[in-house]
Amino acid sequence: MNKITQLKNYLNEFDIEAAFITNPDNVFYVSGFKSNPHERLLGVMVFKEAEPFLICPKMEMPDAKSAGWAGDIVGHADTEDSMEMLYRTASARMGKSGKMAIEKSHMTVDRFEALSGLFSTSEFIALDNKINAMRVTKDEDELQILREAAELADYAIEVGARTLKEGITEIEVMTEIELALKKRGVTHMSFDTTVLSGPKAASPHGKTGDRKIQKGDLVLFDLGVVHKGYCSDITRTLAFGEPNEEQKAVYNTVLEAELAAVNAVRPGVTAAELDAASRSVIEDAGYGEYFTHRLGHGLGISVHEYPSLHGANNMAMEAGMVFTIEPGIYVPGKVGVRIEDDVAVTENGVEVLTKYPKELQIIHN
Amino acid sequence: MNKITQLKNYLNEFDIEAAFITNPDNVFYVSGFKSNPHERLLGVMVFKEAEPFLICPKMEMPDAKSAGWAGDIVGHADTEDSMEMLYRTASARMGKSGKMAIEKSHMTVDRFEALSGLFSTSEFIALDNKINAMRVTKDEDELQILREAAELADYAIEVGARTLKEGITEIEVMTEIELALKKRGVTHMSFDTTVLSGPKAASPHGKTGDRKIQKGDLVLFDLGVVHKGYCSDITRTLAFGEPNEEQKAVYNTVLEAELAAVNAVRPGVTAAELDAASRSVIEDAGYGEYFTHRLGHGLGISVHEYPSLHGANNMAMEAGMVFTIEPGIYVPGKVGVRIEDDVAVTENGVEVLTKYPKELQIIHN
Repeated sequence: MNKITQLKNYLNEFDIEAAFITNPDNVFYVSGFKSNPHERLLGVMVFKEAEPFLICPKMEMPDAKSAGWAGDIVGHADTEDSMEMLYRTASARMGKSGKMAIEKSHMTVDRFEALSGLFSTSEFIALDNKINAMRVTKDEDELQILREAAELADYAIEVGARTLKEGITEIEVMTEIELALKKRGVTHMSFDTTVLSGPKAASPHGKTGDRKIQKGDLVLFDLGVVHKGYCSDITRTLAFGEPNEEQKAVYNTVLEAELAAVNAVRPGVTAAELDAASRSVIEDAGYGEYFTHRLGHGLGISVHEYPSLHGANNMAMEAGMVFTIEPGIYVPGKVGVRIEDDVAVTENGVEVLTKYPKELQIIHN
Repeated sequence: MNKITQLKNYLNEFDIEAAFITNPDNVFYVSGFKSNPHERLLGVMVFKEAEPFLICPKMEMPDAKSAGWAGDIVGHADTEDSMEMLYRTASARMGKSGKMAIEKSHMTVDRFEALSGLFSTSEFIALDNKINAMRVTKDEDELQILREAAELADYAIEVGARTLKEGITEIEVMTEIELALKKRGVTHMSFDTTVLSGPKAASPHGKTGDRKIQKGDLVLFDLGVVHKGYCSDITRTLAFGEPNEEQKAVYNTVLEAELAAVNAVRPGVTAAELDAASRSVIEDAGYGEYFTHRLGHGLGISVHEYPSLHGANNMAMEAGMVFTIEPGIYVPGKVGVRIEDDVAVTENGVEVLTKYPKELQIIHN
């Protein structure tokens, strides 16, 4: 169903006059127009009955149209009072008072004060959960984009694998990966590309740096691309030269844990059950204290989005949900391994979007 | 004066119980600790009398200490209620009710609702103007970092100039620039590096793309680096091959306009006067309608920060302020030129931080 129609139905169901969407990711989701307006006003206002409109900086109006927004657009110049313009256009399309839905986890206090000063709104409702619930299941068009984004992430790991050589630094490997992606048209990574080698891979928030990679290292890659407005996120840990027994044991435990969660994905399974599927493998192998983070997170327009997959989340998975599965073991100062896939829940089970091999790859460059 | 002391003086002057700083740029400014906590709580709370404390995710506590924060730290795990922990620590250090200062242009509505639910605060004051006023004048340590950041921006333009060749695309030039900076230790650009060639340079919000650069193009570079937490921002427009008469005329007009503003910088001059100094040169040359944006913006921890230098801003400049001066002329579909420097106001005049030559550089690679 069209996203605007879904929002109108929600407004009518809960007797809310209007929904004002200002989080740029959500504006993109409902309008197709991706923009970061910084401190300038950007938003989509949706009403029970009346047609929605987009408000944006005047110079972005052509971009919004060419992005596919066919509705009304209110363009504001820097010299104009954008909130006043919002009020004039909106008040003609809605009842005098009543409730308004806003993204309380995004709107700032000063904008909220301006909004409540202009509109005679009886109550401001949090729209966040509704938008999260809409975004959490992806349609076929979104899934296709996420597949393409995952394919680019696979390619990035391939480039990383063939770039490894004795003495190359983590930053140099990262740079080669990003260069190769730029040549394929990738303009933005979904977060800072991470390359961690040797003992640094054992720090879950280590930073890519000047360490020279050497034979015997495990090298952890964590990266993703932004593709047509959607994100991918992959982690692979490769062995540069022959791994020792402990490295192999840790790797195979993480792999078994990752596969246990992936193979448990189907409609109806809960996030907590998926987390437990991975965690129990790692605990049974005696590494439980070294798996220090949640299993994964939702993935889509944002690289970290709703839901969070952790042991206290009893939310049931549904077909169309896309998220990461990324167990890891980090033995401080010694060995760190994480394996992360992007997966989609299907009608019957799971589609794994990231396809780079997961058996331990031993690189002999 | 120490930033915490300045804030304490402000709280006492206006009888405000506490200031809660959560904008990561401002947290860095007052604590030296730079972190992007995403949805997790990060903040510094300052009191009239009691010692301030930092609240951050537990796993970042070592980073905060090594960044130089010597005060108390409250670290919260994902399983803990960070707002409740904030309240417990803060309420022991402040009066029962009274006013609290927050950044209204940064704090979200949901966090504000949580804060006002916990504290019996009589009024929430906007801290934004106070912090802006503190950040706007840079001390000698900050100026030195900004000089270094500007030098890296100069180097980036040098790399761009020597990378130009017939048929190379804008994206390829951008990639070479960023690669060269990474080799000098630059991990983040202050915004997306922009390379626009030929008619594309005439679009003030054009995007770096696949256009092949050819002889006779003007090529506009707009870029900056993040260095030790501070930003640079430079624009240069170079001629690739011999420029024609119109290109030269437009270039020299922009150069004259840029120098007019730079040479007018001294304590006491207003933003509007600086804007007028540039704008009148461009208007007198008959290009007034093609200078479609403000003169410049403040520069520091953020690449766009307070103040905005435009024709309606009568704020007087003071020694220690750092901002950009960046007039441009954009004749649609034909020729686009912008020249941008980072400048600091000195006791007697101006220090230009960016030093790449401004006479029209004609590149014959």
